[in-house]
Amino acid sequence: MDYMKSATKEAYKGMRKGQGGPFGAIIIRKGKIISSAHNMVIKTNDPTAHAEIVAIRKATKKLKRFNLSDCEIYSTCEPCLMCFGAIEWAKIKKLYYGCTRKEAKMIGFDDEEIYADLKNAPKTKRLKEVRISSEETLGPFLEWVKKRNKKKY
Amino acid sequence: MDYMKSATKEAYKGMRKGQGGPFGAIIIRKGKIISSAHNMVIKTNDPTAHAEIVAIRKATKKLKRFNLSDCEIYSTCEPCLMCFGAIEWAKIKKLYYGCTRKEAKMIGFDDEEIYADLKNAPKTKRLKEVRISSEETLGPFLEWVKKRNKKKY
Repeated sequence: MDYMKSATKEAYKGMRKGQGGPFGAIIIRKGKIISSAHNMVIKTNDPTAHAEIVAIRKATKKLKRFNLSDCEIYSTCEPCLMCFGAIEWAKIKKLYYGCTRKEAKMIGFDDEEIYADLKNAPKTKRLKEVRISSEETLGPFLEWVKKRNKKKY
Repeated sequence: MDYMKSATKEAYKGMRKGQGGPFGAIIIRKGKIISSAHNMVIKTNDPTAHAEIVAIRKATKKLKRFNLSDCEIYSTCEPCLMCFGAIEWAKIKKLYYGCTRKEAKMIGFDDEEIYADLKNAPKTKRLKEVRISSEETLGPFLEWVKKRNKKKY
């Protein structure tokens, strides 16, 4: 089966319905599609509702676990920084993608700029970062270390 | 008001309820807290439910818009790659954080490794990336260019 074709269909669907940008993603497990999604930023007013993230949320909900290490993901476009991170947190081990982030830039999306901002952080162009001491915030960290039977993710 | 103290309280709350790791985030608009969240990865089985992302989703839902450029975010820990991307997509312009990602690594979280994986991509240690040609996936991109009255995000 041509999974990229399915992902592309999702991209068309979401864009044509006015739900988001022209991006689709499919997650596969044991040769079967377990989730299929498109960008939903506009419909849901959620800036994190990129196709890959929506697909990950659907798949983890279906499987009732946050670990997708037995899955692969197909995305119509190279993941942005946020989605790259999400794919890694989900422990997905293989990613197939079509368009590049340079192509995404050509049609007006900020992926490339966000990658550049990270490279230049904390001197980013757009996001000003201020480190406050960790005097207060280390408290929960220290309690976490001592916590028993904690679930790792 | 000490916003970092509020974020820290969230971190304790989420961890003690067993909902996720020891992380909290607060979003401020015009001097008022508009959303407050903690990590929910364990409770929701959603690997993207980091404190910053949950806070962004709550704030955008409340404001009914995906653009948070008039907001600031306080996070008990330096954002991971995914959350850094999410903050940028939400157009938040100022971030305050407490613990560093090195401190997060010391208590067992992968933030630092994911940053390293991106640096080494596509030769990442954990995620194998396969570029397929964009012959198919360029279709939605070209249609997007021609689309009228589209909403930018």
